[in-house]
Amino acid sequence: MINIGILGLGRIGRIHLENLSTRIEGVRVLAAMNPSEEGRKFAQKFNVPLITSNADDVINHPDIDAVLICTSTNVHADYLIKVARAGKAIFCEKPLDLSLQKVRETLSVVKQSGVPLMLAFNQRLDPNFQEVKQALLKGRIGKLRSIHIISRDPGPPPIPYIKASGGLFLDMTIHDFDMARYLVGDEVKEVFARGHNLVDPEIGKAGDIDSAYVMLTFNNDVTVVIENCRHASYGYDQRLEVFGSEGMMKAENPLKTTNWVMDKEGVHLSRNLDFFIDRYAESYRLEMKVFIESLEQKIPMPITGEDGLSAMLIALAANISVKENRVVKIEELLG
Amino acid sequence: MINIGILGLGRIGRIHLENLSTRIEGVRVLAAMNPSEEGRKFAQKFNVPLITSNADDVINHPDIDAVLICTSTNVHADYLIKVARAGKAIFCEKPLDLSLQKVRETLSVVKQSGVPLMLAFNQRLDPNFQEVKQALLKGRIGKLRSIHIISRDPGPPPIPYIKASGGLFLDMTIHDFDMARYLVGDEVKEVFARGHNLVDPEIGKAGDIDSAYVMLTFNNDVTVVIENCRHASYGYDQRLEVFGSEGMMKAENPLKTTNWVMDKEGVHLSRNLDFFIDRYAESYRLEMKVFIESLEQKIPMPITGEDGLSAMLIALAANISVKENRVVKIEELLG
Amino acid sequence: MINIGILGLGRIGRIHLENLSTRIEGVRVLAAMNPSEEGRKFAQKFNVPLITSNADDVINHPDIDAVLICTSTNVHADYLIKVARAGKAIFCEKPLDLSLQKVRETLSVVKQSGVPLMLAFNQRLDPNFQEVKQALLKGRIGKLRSIHIISRDPGPPPIPYIKASGGLFLDMTIHDFDMARYLVGDEVKEVFARGHNLVDPEIGKAGDIDSAYVMLTFNNDVTVVIENCRHASYGYDQRLEVFGSEGMMKAENPLKTTNWVMDKEGVHLSRNLDFFIDRYAESYRLEMKVFIESLEQKIPMPITGEDGLSAMLIALAANISVKENRVVKIEELLG
Amino acid sequence: MINIGILGLGRIGRIHLENLSTRIEGVRVLAAMNPSEEGRKFAQKFNVPLITSNADDVINHPDIDAVLICTSTNVHADYLIKVARAGKAIFCEKPLDLSLQKVRETLSVVKQSGVPLMLAFNQRLDPNFQEVKQALLKGRIGKLRSIHIISRDPGPPPIPYIKASGGLFLDMTIHDFDMARYLVGDEVKEVFARGHNLVDPEIGKAGDIDSAYVMLTFNNDVTVVIENCRHASYGYDQRLEVFGSEGMMKAENPLKTTNWVMDKEGVHLSRNLDFFIDRYAESYRLEMKVFIESLEQKIPMPITGEDGLSAMLIALAANISVKENRVVKIEELLG
Repeated sequence: MINIGILGLGRIGRIHLENLSTRIEGVRVLAAMNPSEEGRKFAQKFNVPLITSNADDVINHPDIDAVLICTSTNVHADYLIKVARAGKAIFCEKPLDLSLQKVRETLSVVKQSGVPLMLAFNQRLDPNFQEVKQALLKGRIGKLRSIHIISRDPGPPPIPYIKASGGLFLDMTIHDFDMARYLVGDEVKEVFARGHNLVDPEIGKAGDIDSAYVMLTFNNDVTVVIENCRHASYGYDQRLEVFGSEGMMKAENPLKTTNWVMDKEGVHLSRNLDFFIDRYAESYRLEMKVFIESLEQKIPMPITGEDGLSAMLIALAANISVKENRVVKIEELLG
Repeated sequence: MINIGILGLGRIGRIHLENLSTRIEGVRVLAAMNPSEEGRKFAQKFNVPLITSNADDVINHPDIDAVLICTSTNVHADYLIKVARAGKAIFCEKPLDLSLQKVRETLSVVKQSGVPLMLAFNQRLDPNFQEVKQALLKGRIGKLRSIHIISRDPGPPPIPYIKASGGLFLDMTIHDFDMARYLVGDEVKEVFARGHNLVDPEIGKAGDIDSAYVMLTFNNDVTVVIENCRHASYGYDQRLEVFGSEGMMKAENPLKTTNWVMDKEGVHLSRNLDFFIDRYAESYRLEMKVFIESLEQKIPMPITGEDGLSAMLIALAANISVKENRVVKIEELLG
Repeated sequence: MINIGILGLGRIGRIHLENLSTRIEGVRVLAAMNPSEEGRKFAQKFNVPLITSNADDVINHPDIDAVLICTSTNVHADYLIKVARAGKAIFCEKPLDLSLQKVRETLSVVKQSGVPLMLAFNQRLDPNFQEVKQALLKGRIGKLRSIHIISRDPGPPPIPYIKASGGLFLDMTIHDFDMARYLVGDEVKEVFARGHNLVDPEIGKAGDIDSAYVMLTFNNDVTVVIENCRHASYGYDQRLEVFGSEGMMKAENPLKTTNWVMDKEGVHLSRNLDFFIDRYAESYRLEMKVFIESLEQKIPMPITGEDGLSAMLIALAANISVKENRVVKIEELLG
Repeated sequence: MINIGILGLGRIGRIHLENLSTRIEGVRVLAAMNPSEEGRKFAQKFNVPLITSNADDVINHPDIDAVLICTSTNVHADYLIKVARAGKAIFCEKPLDLSLQKVRETLSVVKQSGVPLMLAFNQRLDPNFQEVKQALLKGRIGKLRSIHIISRDPGPPPIPYIKASGGLFLDMTIHDFDMARYLVGDEVKEVFARGHNLVDPEIGKAGDIDSAYVMLTFNNDVTVVIENCRHASYGYDQRLEVFGSEGMMKAENPLKTTNWVMDKEGVHLSRNLDFFIDRYAESYRLEMKVFIESLEQKIPMPITGEDGLSAMLIALAANISVKENRVVKIEELLG
């Protein structure tokens, strides 16, 4: 039985708590840190023995094996260091931090402490994308030539969120950069990116872009094209397509229902799921399952802090590429 | 806050317990009757205060407002009467009973007691089929002309189950008969049915058919065609199609993933969901939600014991039709 | 080089002329009988050497090997006999005639003459349905259990056409009866049919139905369900589905384009093809190709007069079934 | 009645001849230049009065209004000048020539002559893509943000063809560059392109690439991403997707049939059409129709020589971009 503590019971913390309590075997949540009354009520529903507003009660709890860091980004690094020093395994929501320097320092501390760290790139665990990854590994489409990723949100977040987000590439495209690395199984060599402010002029005034087109060239000559937008009138759009010497595989958007209406105008199908929580519900459960299994079997975590760092470097290169309208080599950021 | 007791914590009882505990507001489960250790553990996970092996502890619990009957079919009628007499609202799994006489008597007792009774024709609450029903009500396809329902299981149940099931029409097609009545919004006038033993000769030896084709004519001249089979190599197949003067609407099977593989043979999509528990997961949650809401708002239950009786009459007419190879009028069974 | 004569240059005669002239090798059209100026112009475009208003010029033309009968139904039988007696091969549009007696007599004459006769059940040659037939022959779906055919027209023909048509089953369902026989590869034992007048009361006044539901039981216990309607607001609807022990195969409607529009309402696809001439264009070409190849290779015609007779018997049984609301055995019509 | 002469009866010349002869009203083909016996036979089938091996017989034919140039590329420019000087309207297959200088000179001569010239970017007339263009014009998807075009051939052409082709961008992507300009309705400002030799090393040895990824930025900030490959194991892949403020529209590949097979592995659909002649059959007919209508109505041609020049400039910029791994501005080529 693995004993878990949770820091933060916002939207994502609650999802993990519910999954751990009801949909995964061999684990229980012993403590949760959350100052809000709403969070407390939620935790009570699942019988969490210790509900506290003091993170240290969780971090230093003698029976707890692993801690989930689900707080706001600005305290991720501090908690990572604290939990690592307490010798507990860590599951941390992304991003580790918005400062490259701080990410490097934090990962260094975690590494020294020797505790396992899994980073929450949940999209890797989406059953559709998992099937694509497994197909690639089995050679189902032969030698990989290129990947195309489309990721569009139903609507932009509030401007204050935008301002604190680190920008589109660090906040949104980061998932696609990770997915690209995961599927290609190699590292990015060069980044070319174009960004525009097409959705809302306020986003431009806040210093960010809302639409982006990225071309990644990997060391193995695979090309990944990414298209992002903060707005899609037709709902949350999350697709990808891998193309190889023996075929092609694409992950299409799930629709709300599988109904067809046919009338004199033509055929009408349902809308995309609108909300990432619905779209990726199963991936949240599976990332917990994989985290727990890795702890039980004492095997390396499938998604590491270094994965977070690598995706971050691509995002920073994309920022430079947009600013200078040129190809940026990843090695420029490593000097 | 509605207080619930559950009789039976088999597969379906647990689904209801989990849904009531974690996915529906304004309700709690106060007691569950289940003799098995496995059921007890499951109930503990959700903090059920009273876990007992004595049904009366649940039925007579002073704080309980409503009881879910999720036991095996043979004791449904007894519990229905007991709970009704205890003055609690009832949610009962189908079928009420396999004997027409007993169903009529039980419903009569329930009626006299004045307690609300909802029957678990969960497929009505499936989001796909709900969307079809709502479209019909809104006139989206104009005046309804006909419906086509296909319902096929991945594989037949064990022979002992077949023997105790009441036969294909009462056990499997009953859902389709209810769906037909629900969507048409009228009563069946005539039934024509053909049945064959194509899947497994053992089913024939057990006195049952495994493949059936039914044509229902409703009072309003709408025709419903139903196709059933106890086996579909390609997975659980649950489709329906409604055809009217202004268009057509069909509910297709959800597939396991939304991926497409394209290779030199063509396009390959995922398999149907195999298991009715997965296929209808959301319908189970929604039927609990509707039950609780009907109690809260003190409105009539959307699916009643009489619905169960009506579907049963169609099934019995279908049995006669197959045996005598002729059209059977429902009124023949009402004499 | 096979030399062809054509009787009748209406819609279907012109399709055959164009296909023979431009899309099939090893054949030429030497003569065409057509009294209209429009037909004459069409024939000139394709260099037909002899264009005449006298059918005998075609039938007795010394160089002609085969004659296509594309006139109105009421003279089919006369021309069949004349052409047969002239010793030419025959391709005849369906139906042979509306009178069972006359069909039997005509086929008897054709048989005595020894000339090959191919009947124009063009839908058998549709590439979609051909692929289904080939899959059945190869055992792709295992042992066949049942077939479901949906056939709906965009709108009803004019009332005078209805009156002369022989009724829905002989005019429209006849294609589906033939398809059922073709795909099952066996003969029908019993017919149950229901018919309604739902589309236009004028059709009812003309003594016909416009909506029909048929259940055919074949000698090998395969069931075929057919749904027909003279009106579908969403366009020409021609689908079929075969279900067997190893799987299922369905032929879906081709849509006008393959475009998807996604907007805030959902997904919108194109409309079905509206016109049977477009839907079945390739089948018309292929039936000519098969006719010519059968002549060249001197092999039996793939669709015979007897096929027409068998489909007609099913239609007549369906008429009786609707009238008497009972199962009709085909053997009742053979007595 | 418009009178047409054709230069060249290779694959594409024959398609135009057949379409003009049988599927378009108000036009006839009076003469065709072709030295081969096979071409002569084909022309006879459609009653072409003058079949000659001397192009001048066609160009100077007194009754001919317009000439189709369907010969090999290397003589396009010469014939363009000759036909323009003879005062006939011109329909010319692409490309005009592989030399930018020669294209400019030739277009200058044509312009001076005042004859109409239509360039054969047939894909614009494809019904799927036409529907997309019309939807864009009607604002169906709001303000256009970006376009994504995928164009992959089933297999690479022979190496000698590659060597004479002018390279991937001028030979294959040229269609996509034209489509991008057509759909965006504006001019390209900047080009970024990456090219690889992934399919066949012989193509690399011949100095060409076989896989390309292009990002076009238009003056109006619309981005167009193009993916090309000389090989797709799953058949000819021609898709595009336009994304705007109000929605998205995509053109999917037509499949060979519309059949679904469902078995224990999942769902299996048909393969893409393999051959561009099949995929674009209707576009060839429609480009002839539009050409003839423009002549009849004396309106400007919908696709001009300048369209060819503009697409060529993008291709040349892409060549530089690949070589120098940088963004290339179109204005660099205009200096």
